[in-house]
Order: sequence, then C-alpha cells, then structure tokens
Amino acid sequence: QTAFDAEDHSHRRYNPLLDEWVLVAPHRMKRPWKGQVEDPFDFASIPRHDPKNGLCPNTTRASGKKTPDYTSTYVFVNDFPTFRDDLPQPSEEQRKLNDLMRLEGVTGECRVMCFHPFSDLTLPLMSLENIRKVVDAWIEQLLELGERFKWVQIFENKGQAMGCSNPHPHCQIWASGHLPNVAARKNKHQLEYYEKHGTPMLLDYAQLEAKHKERIVVENDDWLVVVPWWAVWPYETMILPRRRHILRLCDLTDTERDSLSSAMKTLLTKYDNLFQTSFPYSMGWHGAPTGGTGDDECQHWQLHAIYYPPLLRSASVKKFMVGYEMHAESQRDLTAESAARRLRAVSDKHYYTPKL
Amino acid sequence: QTAFDAEDHSHRRYNPLLDEWVLVAPHRMKRPWKGQVEDPFDFASIPRHDPKNGLCPNTTRASGKKTPDYTSTYVFVNDFPTFRDDLPQPSEEQRKLNDLMRLEGVTGECRVMCFHPFSDLTLPLMSLENIRKVVDAWIEQLLELGERFKWVQIFENKGQAMGCSNPHPHCQIWASGHLPNVAARKNKHQLEYYEKHGTPMLLDYAQLEAKHKERIVVENDDWLVVVPWWAVWPYETMILPRRRHILRLCDLTDTERDSLSSAMKTLLTKYDNLFQTSFPYSMGWHGAPTGGTGDDECQHWQLHAIYYPPLLRSASVKKFMVGYEMHAESQRDLTAESAARRLRAVSDKHYYTPKL
Ligand SMILES: O=P(O)(O)O[C@H]1O[C@H](CO)[C@@H](O)[C@H](O)[C@H]1O
Ligand SMILES: O=P(O)(O)O[C@H]1O[C@H](CO)[C@@H](O)[C@H](O)[C@H]1O
Repeated sequence: QTAFDAEDHSHRRYNPLLDEWVLVAPHRMKRPWKGQVEDPFDFASIPRHDPKNGLCPNTTRASGKKTPDYTSTYVFVNDFPTFRDDLPQPSEEQRKLNDLMRLEGVTGECRVMCFHPFSDLTLPLMSLENIRKVVDAWIEQLLELGERFKWVQIFENKGQAMGCSNPHPHCQIWASGHLPNVAARKNKHQLEYYEKHGTPMLLDYAQLEAKHKERIVVENDDWLVVVPWWAVWPYETMILPRRRHILRLCDLTDTERDSLSSAMKTLLTKYDNLFQTSFPYSMGWHGAPTGGTGDDECQHWQLHAIYYPPLLRSASVKKFMVGYEMHAESQRDLTAESAARRLRAVSDKHYYTPKL
Repeated sequence: QTAFDAEDHSHRRYNPLLDEWVLVAPHRMKRPWKGQVEDPFDFASIPRHDPKNGLCPNTTRASGKKTPDYTSTYVFVNDFPTFRDDLPQPSEEQRKLNDLMRLEGVTGECRVMCFHPFSDLTLPLMSLENIRKVVDAWIEQLLELGERFKWVQIFENKGQAMGCSNPHPHCQIWASGHLPNVAARKNKHQLEYYEKHGTPMLLDYAQLEAKHKERIVVENDDWLVVVPWWAVWPYETMILPRRRHILRLCDLTDTERDSLSSAMKTLLTKYDNLFQTSFPYSMGWHGAPTGGTGDDECQHWQLHAIYYPPLLRSASVKKFMVGYEMHAESQRDLTAESAARRLRAVSDKHYYTPKL
C-alpha cells in the first residue's frame, strides 16, 4: 500500500486561528478548465493620471467632492460609507423581531487612502521610502480611529479580479464599534490558546515556521512572510513579526517599520513576477482590538497581515471559492509548501520598470 | 433625530444557523463601479451539442474516458476527484507535527451529474418532468453514497461568474467520511436550538417567514422559497419545507418531489428573468448526516437548499465578497426584503424560448 504523502494525497489541515479545516487536493490542478478567463493586464497601458478618476489628484469624485492635488498618501472619508458615527440606532423591538430574526445597530467610520498620486504605481513599484509613508499613514489612522472605535480594519482590494472598484492604487480603513465576525473568532481562539500555553499563538507559530523553513517566502530580521500551514487561497501569505510580541501596528519601532516596508516590497514583487501580471489580492491587517481595550486584556493577540490572492494557474485563471467551498469546506488545489517553493523561486526584482 | 429604518440604515443581522453576523448597507448600491464587468450571455449562442465537450453525450473526456450517448440524467465518477475511498491515510506523526500544524486524512467519492443531454437546456428551461428526473437522481445518489459516507454534498456551480469550469448543465455530488466545516457548524447550532426549544430551528423559521411574508419569493403547498433574514449574497434564497419536518431529500413524498421541481423551476425562471441572463449561482443541499447516523441522533436537522447568486446590479456587475468581507464580516448592499420584492415582481414565465 502507498504511504500517505501530503504533496500527492488529499487531506484536511486545521486552522487554529479560525477553528476550521481546509481541504488540500493537490492533483486538482491538473483538471481541464473551460471556465472564466481574466482579462490580460499590461502595466504600460495604465495612464499615470486619469482626470475622470476621482481617486487621482486634482479631480472631482462621483459624489461631487473634490480630490485635492495631493503629493504623497491621501486619506478621505468614503463617499458611500457602510459605517458612520451618526447612524440612527434600532429600538429594542426592532432589534429582536423574534428568536430567529435579530439585528443590531452599527457605528463607525469608513475611509479611503490613496497610496500615491500616480495611478500606474502599485505598491511593489513604489520606492521603499514611499511604501514606508503608507505604513506610517496606516499607523496614523489606527491611532486616530482606534481612540474611538473597537476595531480598525485596514484592507486593500487590488485588481479587477478581486472586486476592486477603482484602478487607482488605494486601500480602505473601516472602523467599527463592534468586533466583526473574523476578529471575534480570532480573538476567541487566540485567547483559548494563550490561556492554555501562556504564549501568544502566532508568536509560537512564527517560531515553528522559522524552524521548519519550507513555508517561508520572505524573511528579514524582524519579519517572516509564510504561506500558512492552513492557507486557503492558492498563494495566500501571512506577514508575522519574527520574534517579538507586538499587539498592533502602532507598536512597531522605526526599524520594524522600515523592515516591514522592505518585506512587503519583496513579497509583492514576487507576486507580480509569478505570472508576470499585477497580482490581484485582498490584504488585511489584524491586531489587538482598540477603542479603550487595555493591553492587559489582549495579550493573546499578535499583529499580522494576510494576503488572499485568487490567481491559481496563470495570470488569467483564478481559483473560485464556490460550490463545495461555499456549501461545505474550503479547498485548495496545491499544497502550501509547493506555493511557498514557487514564490521563493521567482526573482525579487520586478519584471516591469515603470516610466520615470 | 431620524428613526432607524432597516431599508435605509446600515445594520448587522444575525444568522442563527452559522452563529455569525452579516452587515447590511443598503445605500452602498449607489456607489460608482469602475470594476470588473462580466461577459454578456446569449442563450441562442450555446450549441446544443459540442463534440469537444466531454460532458456532452457520445464524447471522450480529457481523461480519455468515454461519455456514453445518454438520454436523461447521467452520473459518472469525477475524473479529478478530491475524495476517493482508497486514499492513503496519514500516520500518527504525520497527523500532528505540533500543536499548530495538524492534518487529517479524508475518504469519500466525487461524482458529476449531467442534467440533460442538451447543453443549451439549463434547469429553468427544462420541463417539469425532466427536473423531476434530476430530483429523483439526487435521491438515488444520496441513498447510495449515504450508505457509506457521513456527508453527501450535492451542489451546482452555474455560470462562468460562479467558477463553473464546464458550460454543460451539471451538478456534482461529493461524499465524505467527515462532516465538512459548514455542516459541522449547522449541526451544532441546530442542535443547540433544538435542545432549547424542542422544535427544529428551520421548521420554526419557515413558519415565521410564512407569517411575515415579506421575504417570500415562491410558495406552494409544500415549499417556501425565501430570501433569508440573514442572506449574504444579493439574491440569495433558501428552499424550505413549509410545514413538515423532513430530515433528508430521500424522505420526500412523491407529491413533494413534484412540488419541489415546480418551486425550483419558478425560482430559477425568476432568477433568469431578473437581469435577462442565465443567472449564475452556487446551489447546495443540506440535510441530516448519513453514513449510519440514526434518525434519532439528528432530529434537530431540517432539509434545505441554498442558492448563492453573485449578480448585484445587472447581468454584468456582480458582488465581490472581498476586502472587508474576507477580513472582517460579510456585507450586502441591498436588504433581504427588497431582494425578495424584486424577485416576486418578475415574471415566472422564462424570457427565452429554447429551440425545439
Ligand atoms: O469542479 P469544477 O467545476 O471543475 O470547479 C469548480 O468547482 C469546484 C468544487 O466546488 C471548485 O473547487 C473549483 O474552484 C470551481 O472552479
Ligand atoms: O469599496 P469598493 O472598492 O467600491 O468595493 C469593494 O470592496 C468592498 C469592501 O471590501 C466590497 O464590499 C465590495 O463588494 C467590493 O467590490
């Protein structure tokens, strides 16, 4: 009888952060694809400035609001915000129609952050100095919104394939008075682990990955970028502090901010080089809750970023999380180890040189 | 101060089946869209028979296997199966590298079911008689695979936008020896409800929806089709037995199989009519576990089907579950009530008449 080989045989891996499983079916990559194909992408075709795009400097947005002639990062309030701090709140009866129909009011703020005035400069093409400005702007936002709100979600949707509704490089910051689903689950499972082991789960995890090495994509003195053991998306990665217990982005030292910018630039360059395209993804930062949550209440948290990129086989064929995935269990078609191997193998010098 | 109005103001709704929340931000529909646009779809352009498509009768599949000249439904084993019943199983050491890196072997079977020999006949265009044959074939598969496996997941990915890799109308049946994530969560929360209330959650829920009426899309003597209170996808629906406690598809009476075929035909016709396109979706059936699970152990279960359709604004603009949704919490851009209202309003006679 053949021995089990994770590289060949279907299996499930456990995700301790979310307390759920992911199916791994490595040979599924070989099946024929007559499905949807993404549009090709060409860096050279992106105009540096589009006077009709409200995220470009010196334009008017669909809402009628002006975008000024900014020269670095630029943050403004989302014109169609999900959260606002003046939303009417439901009454007791509105909140509970019956045992099975319940709702809850929300409060918060939604902002948009343009990374740079140029539409053709995505993060991997930006200089380290300018990426560092993005990191600093994230921290500034976190400090300000974190004063008032319990959860500050920084996220970036990059690329059409990832539902990005505007091609100008930007991210969003949605702050809310409540812990959203994913945050609540991570909070619970990190706390359980901390109570059992006395150390933060993701600090222990980083140390294990540093020892195993096979899932590491990028590393430097302060950071590890790994394809997590329990990764769901084909080239999913996680950025983790390498050895220090860090609750939130704002706790980073000056050196750590620089080394983070550098790890990001290397990772995102490798992403673009993998299929020679502007690699789409959805990125999010997770750290300890804010809004007056004391540090002593959240020692179980460890700061981390997650990238969910959808491309699977090439620049035009993505993985769809549908069918079995939606109704039963997430499934990946290549192992985390082989994804990490491929990402390690590609160059960290970008295949495209932007015009000056 | 303005009073809270769920039709206007952002809020969160609770999903008791999965124990999680969904954000509802009705005014988000108004924001400008410069993102991805789906290809237009034209029924008349679909060939009835494509000799190069291995799901059509009398063809050879990529694997070299033959598809016979079938005349009704046709079921075969997936050529690239995630589950097989002869997969090598991991050893104790392989299963637990350490506390944070665990895996598990899997066993099961994956099958594909073509609905009909014609590639241009999707379910809503099929006759009631032929839809009934699909229902009967589902039941046959469930009975056979349910003998050996704990969970039999019947699901259909329809449309390119939903990651369907082959345009010939078909569904899949993946049976596994374990309860997948979603099944395990539904099992837990239905059980908790049953222990507290003494009645199955989804039977109570159907009765509440029948009373409220505003989320009903289609109804007949045996079935309710509703946009669930906690729906995530824009036009998500759930098919529920109207008044009878039914554990599994195979427990349906002859009349209920007919009325189910009819409810499905009406729902899917409305879906196609809404944006005048072949409406993409991912559908799944959920009922009590099988594989020797005694009926007395799963009285908390109630049979139901779920449709997750991605289209939001038109035949070409879909909702992307990305960014905030992936990293924090699902969000919908119109209320369940307004989705149900729109679906009720469209005709239940299909806009397209297939050639004979
Ligand atoms: O099986 P198919 O149609 O080739 O592929 C589709 O369904 C599978 C099962 O839901 C998914 O894993 C794939 O991502 C999806 O593209
Ligand atoms: O905010 P955008 O870029 O218009 O829209 C995108 O991100 C949002 C927040 O993650 C999602 O709700 C939308 O579905 C997605 O298309």
